[in-house]
This record gives sequence, C-alpha cells and structure tokens, in this order.
Amino acid sequence: MIYRVYVEFKPGILDPESEAIKRTVNQLGFSNVENISKGKFFDIELSSNNCLSDIEKISKELLSNPVIENFKVVKK
Amino acid sequence: MIYRVYVEFKPGILDPESEAIKRTVNQLGFSNVENISKGKFFDIELSSNNCLSDIEKISKELLSNPVIENFKVVKK
Repeated sequence: MIYRVYVEFKPGILDPESEAIKRTVNQLGFSNVENISKGKFFDIELSSNNCLSDIEKISKELLSNPVIENFKVVKK
Repeated sequence: MIYRVYVEFKPGILDPESEAIKRTVNQLGFSNVENISKGKFFDIELSSNNCLSDIEKISKELLSNPVIENFKVVKK
C-alpha cells in the first residue's frame, strides 16, 4: 500500500524560490503566468495496511516543519 | 486556471535523501515502511486558457532536469 504525503508552505509564508522562478518564467516571455507555488511530495510504501496514523506521525515529525508547513496524506 | 507539475527522479536514479529518510523512519520504529521516494510539485496559475504547451515548455526548460527527472502536468 502506497501513501502520498504532500508538504507545502502555509499560506502567508514567504517563498523566495517560487518568486524567483515566477520572475524567470515571466522574463522568458510567459507573461500569462500569474503565480507559482511549490511543494514536495513523498511516496511511502508500507508492508501492512491501516497505518494512516503512522503516516501522519512520520509526516509531522520528519517530513514537514509544522511551524511553517502543512501536509496532506492521500492514498495512492 | 491552475496547472500542477509533478517532478520526480527517473527510475534507476539514486536518491540518497530518500534513502536517509527511509533509514531514519525505520530507526524510529516504523519497520513496516518498505520504500520512500520523493519529488516536488509546482502549482502554476495562468491568466489565460489553453496553455498546456507553455506549461510543458516551462517544465522542461526550467522546473525539471530532463537528464535525471520526469515531469507530469495535471490540471488542478
């Protein structure tokens, strides 16, 4: 069973990397790009079922920084 | 209109960060975790429609390294 964990900045947290990408994209001629935000994801493969609570614990303690990031778990 | 671009390593490319995360997760007591792979995603907001070819060009030239990474575009 594979779970996918999405991690991204909370709303309001400044992300200079996304800003730089957006500026570069605009400079390359894609003026219709209005906003870019980025995040990361982790595909976690488990040998047993019904371990959503484990995944949430791993996400909270290891994969994300709860001060500035949100995470979301989906079954893949 | 928002597109999401997923970028991840091509199969066979070594990813030491994912390996380290997996090892740490196992050491924390989650022995049922068999594999972890990671990737990143970008949410790109466009002011106009029908720009899938633009998104693909941006993904190829700026957001991914085509030598070692694959990307996938989905409409959000």
